[in-house]
Amino acid sequence: MVSHDDAAREARGERIAPAVSPLLTDLYQLNMMQAYLDRGMTAPAAFEFFVRKLPRQRGFLVAAGLEQVLGYLEGLRFGPAELEWLRSTRRFSDSFLAYLAGLRFDGDVDAMPEGRVFFANEPIVRITAPLPVAQLVETRILNLLHFQSLIASKAARIVLQAPGKTLVDFGLRRAHGAEAGLFAARAAFIAGFTGTATVAAAEAFGIPVFGTMAHSFIQAHDSETAAFKSFALSRPDNLVLLIDTYDTLEGARRVVALAPWLRQQGIALKGVRLDSGDLLALSRDVRRILDDGGLRDVTIFASGGIDETAVARMLEGGAPIDGFGVGTALTTSEDAPALDCAFKLQEYAGVARRKLSAGKATWPGRKQVFRQAGGEVMRGDVLTLADDAQPGERLIVGMMRGGRRLSQPEPLATIRARCAGDLARLPPGLRRLVPDTAYPVTVAPALDALAAEVDRAIASARSAP
Amino acid sequence: MVSHDDAAREARGERIAPAVSPLLTDLYQLNMMQAYLDRGMTAPAAFEFFVRKLPRQRGFLVAAGLEQVLGYLEGLRFGPAELEWLRSTRRFSDSFLAYLAGLRFDGDVDAMPEGRVFFANEPIVRITAPLPVAQLVETRILNLLHFQSLIASKAARIVLQAPGKTLVDFGLRRAHGAEAGLFAARAAFIAGFTGTATVAAAEAFGIPVFGTMAHSFIQAHDSETAAFKSFALSRPDNLVLLIDTYDTLEGARRVVALAPWLRQQGIALKGVRLDSGDLLALSRDVRRILDDGGLRDVTIFASGGIDETAVARMLEGGAPIDGFGVGTALTTSEDAPALDCAFKLQEYAGVARRKLSAGKATWPGRKQVFRQAGGEVMRGDVLTLADDAQPGERLIVGMMRGGRRLSQPEPLATIRARCAGDLARLPPGLRRLVPDTAYPVTVAPALDALAAEVDRAIASARSAP
Repeated sequence: MVSHDDAAREARGERIAPAVSPLLTDLYQLNMMQAYLDRGMTAPAAFEFFVRKLPRQRGFLVAAGLEQVLGYLEGLRFGPAELEWLRSTRRFSDSFLAYLAGLRFDGDVDAMPEGRVFFANEPIVRITAPLPVAQLVETRILNLLHFQSLIASKAARIVLQAPGKTLVDFGLRRAHGAEAGLFAARAAFIAGFTGTATVAAAEAFGIPVFGTMAHSFIQAHDSETAAFKSFALSRPDNLVLLIDTYDTLEGARRVVALAPWLRQQGIALKGVRLDSGDLLALSRDVRRILDDGGLRDVTIFASGGIDETAVARMLEGGAPIDGFGVGTALTTSEDAPALDCAFKLQEYAGVARRKLSAGKATWPGRKQVFRQAGGEVMRGDVLTLADDAQPGERLIVGMMRGGRRLSQPEPLATIRARCAGDLARLPPGLRRLVPDTAYPVTVAPALDALAAEVDRAIASARSAP
Repeated sequence: MVSHDDAAREARGERIAPAVSPLLTDLYQLNMMQAYLDRGMTAPAAFEFFVRKLPRQRGFLVAAGLEQVLGYLEGLRFGPAELEWLRSTRRFSDSFLAYLAGLRFDGDVDAMPEGRVFFANEPIVRITAPLPVAQLVETRILNLLHFQSLIASKAARIVLQAPGKTLVDFGLRRAHGAEAGLFAARAAFIAGFTGTATVAAAEAFGIPVFGTMAHSFIQAHDSETAAFKSFALSRPDNLVLLIDTYDTLEGARRVVALAPWLRQQGIALKGVRLDSGDLLALSRDVRRILDDGGLRDVTIFASGGIDETAVARMLEGGAPIDGFGVGTALTTSEDAPALDCAFKLQEYAGVARRKLSAGKATWPGRKQVFRQAGGEVMRGDVLTLADDAQPGERLIVGMMRGGRRLSQPEPLATIRARCAGDLARLPPGLRRLVPDTAYPVTVAPALDALAAEVDRAIASARSAP
């Protein structure tokens, strides 16, 4: 989308990079900002991100994307090209454009650290900033938190079905654009995936990267054996051969036949990959062919149409598969490609706020979540006000004050370990493929009382002339 | 993700911009490239992008994303930071890195122009380039063509259900990342949407942009009427008021009560927006309240959980709705968030190639699609070899030769008009919500003969020692 020349112009603010521009927002945010400024409504507002309702077949969610939110807020500014373009639309006043020119994010962020397990109605991020600023950032913050939490939650389901297996993200090609591919690799790694096939994600996030060979490589050679030899000579380390281009079992026999030649060359064959057909049945037959050929240490890696249901079915069926490449189902969260999430105004100018729209009512005020654990299992959460005290662990902590981070970005390994810890403490009913328990999230009396108070205030304003 | 300082470093090649880097590919592509180069396999290869099988409830697809593919190929190069990082992984030889340093895309692109309707097994893009180059670009080309074609196809379904209605993309917040939000706006506009709410998409692609107000705006004020007044004063043009924050019908009555004041201020009210509840029933009641209040010209705009099924149900039910904002269902293609697409080697060094994997067999060779139309309706397509002649319109045309475009980028309006033309010529059975016709795509004898020939060659190579 962007050439290196364009990048130079973007760096000087002469060209707009749409994917990282503050213009990556909804028009109504800018419309509302101007109206707020016209009325002098610049007091602090608190917005919270939460998921209203979990998709079917999700018993829990995993928080991810906060690091990108903090980076976005730190870098938020309107460059000359953006201001000029806004002026050219004739939609905005000069005083509003002058305000935008000086706008920086100088607010607060409180959040659950990435990798935490969370549930419906629990805020995972709160932004507190002057109302126009908090309004502007709504769209991108939703966009960032929604996607990575969606993918981390899907990935965690796959991880729970595949204990001890190698799991690799194969999804870039069917991810929804470049950023989706990169962030899906990050979110999957947080949830416990072993690595990714995406080179740029390995570089950007330090995620282990994996890769074998494609069917085109086999097809480009005159025979499968010629292709195997050619690849083995070029990539003698961690050699994995793709054996399903023409006929999987024939491919496996060809690998056995090739083994003496590989040994002569000093090349250690690590594994074979299956990418089509009945993977359960084929993996058994391939295992037998490899074992009978003396290749007991050669692993079997499976890909093609894999999701958590396929993994569970294969492993319950005793499939001798050592690892899975998961693509489309992971990077699009195919069975549930969106979360019913929102970023809602909960407080303005010190007064708690609430939306009552049918099916979309929200809990007012700045909130906190306390988690109770008995022994090594999570027992239940309490949703309450930020200044209330409840037993258990406080999940929402300070991340940014006055636009400055309170700590360095967390290493991905730390986030991944946190997620592994939370997954290990999940009630067993929530770890299943089809969750058969609802996790108890209760609302504390303090929050209930505030909601009733806000309702009374709304009713009184309604009956006013 | 990227600050302006980072952008400056990216422009000098000192920092990697992962979303626009040639590293945005699968590791196996780089592994295979090195193996090809080691064996001197640099003859021209032809790869084609096609969809194997349409998702349920899709009777046709719409081609989109070619412009981004051409831009990607034009800008393809490895900068110093990318080469240095690859070197640091110790996975690649010095000679391979030297090859990458000089790599440019100097191949050919043939494709269906964007906006065309297409069907299963019909290639929409062919890349012909030295084998290592064609292999490298596979992942990003799939990523670009898959997503925009997915969204244009979904958007076209919505467009067909809503003739004459205003349709606006509201999906950025739940799109899978920044690029998905931007490209979804473009793809939806190609398919016939009226515009988008995404400001950066308006700037980048010249798409009309729309925006009203959010619930937070209402909530930040002491009463709904105060919020309406405040917004009207700041945005007197094209005023649309959101009326469902507390109670939709009460909101509509408040709008009627406010009308004389608006007239006094010289403000023309354009419409109201409903965003929750039973939109069919509410739109009727709101229409009655507005009409009884003398506001017959005020339009009703609906959003919240809209997809093509909801649109069809509401309009069949006689809902007096003038326009729809469509978010999640559009930008995630929620009922079918991925296409079963592939980018496959069809010819190498002048020899046609074919993959036979179970359920994934491909048609070999460089192909062309001819479309026959009787009167104003499409009658059927013929899939054949590029050098074969068949009656009808030739859909695949030259786009790039030797790395240079054969023509300027097409204006979006041209692409949009092409799509409208193709949608108008669709057989009626394919225009329905649940398509009840299969479009005839036949394979010409020339292609059948080549497939048989390739199968014989594969069988003979298999029986070789």
